[in-house]
Amino acid sequence: MEKIKVVLWGIGAMGSGIGKILLNRKGIEIVGAIDNMASKVGKDLGELLDLKEKTGIKVTDNPEEAINSDVDIVMHATSYLNKDEFEFLLKKKVNVITTIAEISYPGAKDPDLATWLDDLAKKNEVAILGTGINPGFVLDLLIITLTGACSSVEKIEASRVNDLSPFGHTVMKDQGVGISVEEFRRGVEEGKIMGHYAFPESLYMIADRIGLEIDEIKETIEPIISKTIRETKYVKIEPGMVAGCKHTARGFKDGKEVIVLEHPQQVFPEKEGTETGDYINIFGDPDIKMAIKPEIPGGVGTMAVAVNMIPQVLNSRAGLVTMADLPTPGVIMSDVRNLLRNK
Amino acid sequence: MEKIKVVLWGIGAMGSGIGKILLNRKGIEIVGAIDNMASKVGKDLGELLDLKEKTGIKVTDNPEEAINSDVDIVMHATSYLNKDEFEFLLKKKVNVITTIAEISYPGAKDPDLATWLDDLAKKNEVAILGTGINPGFVLDLLIITLTGACSSVEKIEASRVNDLSPFGHTVMKDQGVGISVEEFRRGVEEGKIMGHYAFPESLYMIADRIGLEIDEIKETIEPIISKTIRETKYVKIEPGMVAGCKHTARGFKDGKEVIVLEHPQQVFPEKEGTETGDYINIFGDPDIKMAIKPEIPGGVGTMAVAVNMIPQVLNSRAGLVTMADLPTPGVIMSDVRNLLRNK
Repeated sequence: MEKIKVVLWGIGAMGSGIGKILLNRKGIEIVGAIDNMASKVGKDLGELLDLKEKTGIKVTDNPEEAINSDVDIVMHATSYLNKDEFEFLLKKKVNVITTIAEISYPGAKDPDLATWLDDLAKKNEVAILGTGINPGFVLDLLIITLTGACSSVEKIEASRVNDLSPFGHTVMKDQGVGISVEEFRRGVEEGKIMGHYAFPESLYMIADRIGLEIDEIKETIEPIISKTIRETKYVKIEPGMVAGCKHTARGFKDGKEVIVLEHPQQVFPEKEGTETGDYINIFGDPDIKMAIKPEIPGGVGTMAVAVNMIPQVLNSRAGLVTMADLPTPGVIMSDVRNLLRNK
Repeated sequence: MEKIKVVLWGIGAMGSGIGKILLNRKGIEIVGAIDNMASKVGKDLGELLDLKEKTGIKVTDNPEEAINSDVDIVMHATSYLNKDEFEFLLKKKVNVITTIAEISYPGAKDPDLATWLDDLAKKNEVAILGTGINPGFVLDLLIITLTGACSSVEKIEASRVNDLSPFGHTVMKDQGVGISVEEFRRGVEEGKIMGHYAFPESLYMIADRIGLEIDEIKETIEPIISKTIRETKYVKIEPGMVAGCKHTARGFKDGKEVIVLEHPQQVFPEKEGTETGDYINIFGDPDIKMAIKPEIPGGVGTMAVAVNMIPQVLNSRAGLVTMADLPTPGVIMSDVRNLLRNK
């Protein structure tokens, strides 16, 4: 069997990380690389991935150049949803794994987008999956999986508690770190402080899959106000200032909370006794209380989940698929082709 | 769409628990019940499930009576592997979910059995799955799933620590609780103290799926020697006596441990500071350290996993399938038929 032929679309932090993992996977071959940033176009992929040797693959900003009928799957890791890109890829009859959050469960925000993608993928006999660590793994797939050991479930509470201190200016700004409470609240009102973008995707993925109906989602974004001095390379927080952003999404059924997902993101949470981790509490028969401490890191986690789903997407029925539809992911230390079934 | 028609085979503790869960599931109908125990044959299923009302389903010891071409799936929960039962069911073209440990990964102990089941199921266009809490969920599916967030894995250590104090004489005897260390060692030698039966199944399910090769498994069964007095309704343990059985399975590659699964079972572990729980430590990129405290209970956990896999098995390709092959389980609070795809 020939190697699985992969094209990278988007060679930023995430895309180049995915590329590096792929280079270590047996049975996979990177055959193309797409990015529209002028500074990257024309360079050898090896240079962008900090390799010692050239790969012979030139980065192009012209998808037509990179995608041909030999390509099995595109690992798509750009920054923003662009429907044209997916239309292009699906019409070229290549399978797609994307880290674009909306695609993990498009029906959550845009049912028309979900239908359009599903139809287009089916018509072209390929599959498209959106995934990553969150959405895609911690606050959806893992929750669904744990409910698999329950005979009934009444309520789910889960929290992903992380530490923003390794991150730079952009993240600090997006999460409102290092500003006053007043500025934070204004930032939220003006839509500049967004918190975690993808709660509806995770929430509906869970609700639809396990049949725990919700009729309304309420999201709140609150400042995490520091009691101590917290200082990183990029920001210094005095007591009373904002150390982070606590974003919560609550799914209600008949006025009752049934799914509560929380993602408090701050710098140095341990300074005030908060342990970082992924926490899932399922209330049902039986109750299940799970903790992963520290939390699964977002960067490598997203890259790994995306790469590990390659055989599942290649084995999948055609259409828009979600993490809840496909066999469970797992790392692949052997030749990836061992996991392919003849379709 | 008609309701999913289910037959129960084996109405012991596990089978009757499965039956009770099924009665609360929308879109499912129990249409038959098989058990060969004389005291159960001819009784109404409602009586065996402690229901207030009759179900109209009489327990039979004749599978031919219970299985007809309308049956979609059999929930098989007997005590011992009997190939004839599976041959009968597969030839009747019904799908099977069984709690028989060997069937969760038959290749582990008997590759011929795996091939035979796979061929027979394929020939008759149905699927057969062995599952439960362990094997089937905690020490295999959950481990595989967590490695899905890793770009590489070098070693896996996992432990299921439970409390045997609610159990009766049989379990105490099987695990060697309440005897001297000498008696315990003799019991292990004579094969009377077995510990956990299904380590090879879990170990090979993980190893084969994630490609972490192993060339040898070593199992050890050690007594957990009490330092304190531990007393249940059925047993009194003095210091120096055996409070339980610590069973460990180590998978080696080139003399190096790569997968270590452990299942220490004892009465009142908290008496000596041991917290019950399911613990998974993955060493790789990234490391992942998961704890579920207390452990997912084995009884309801097994019943729930088995019932929750019904749509996955009905949607599956034909053949012998494992928990690692199918979409992740999840509880099903809505009509189970919502999860069926046209095949």
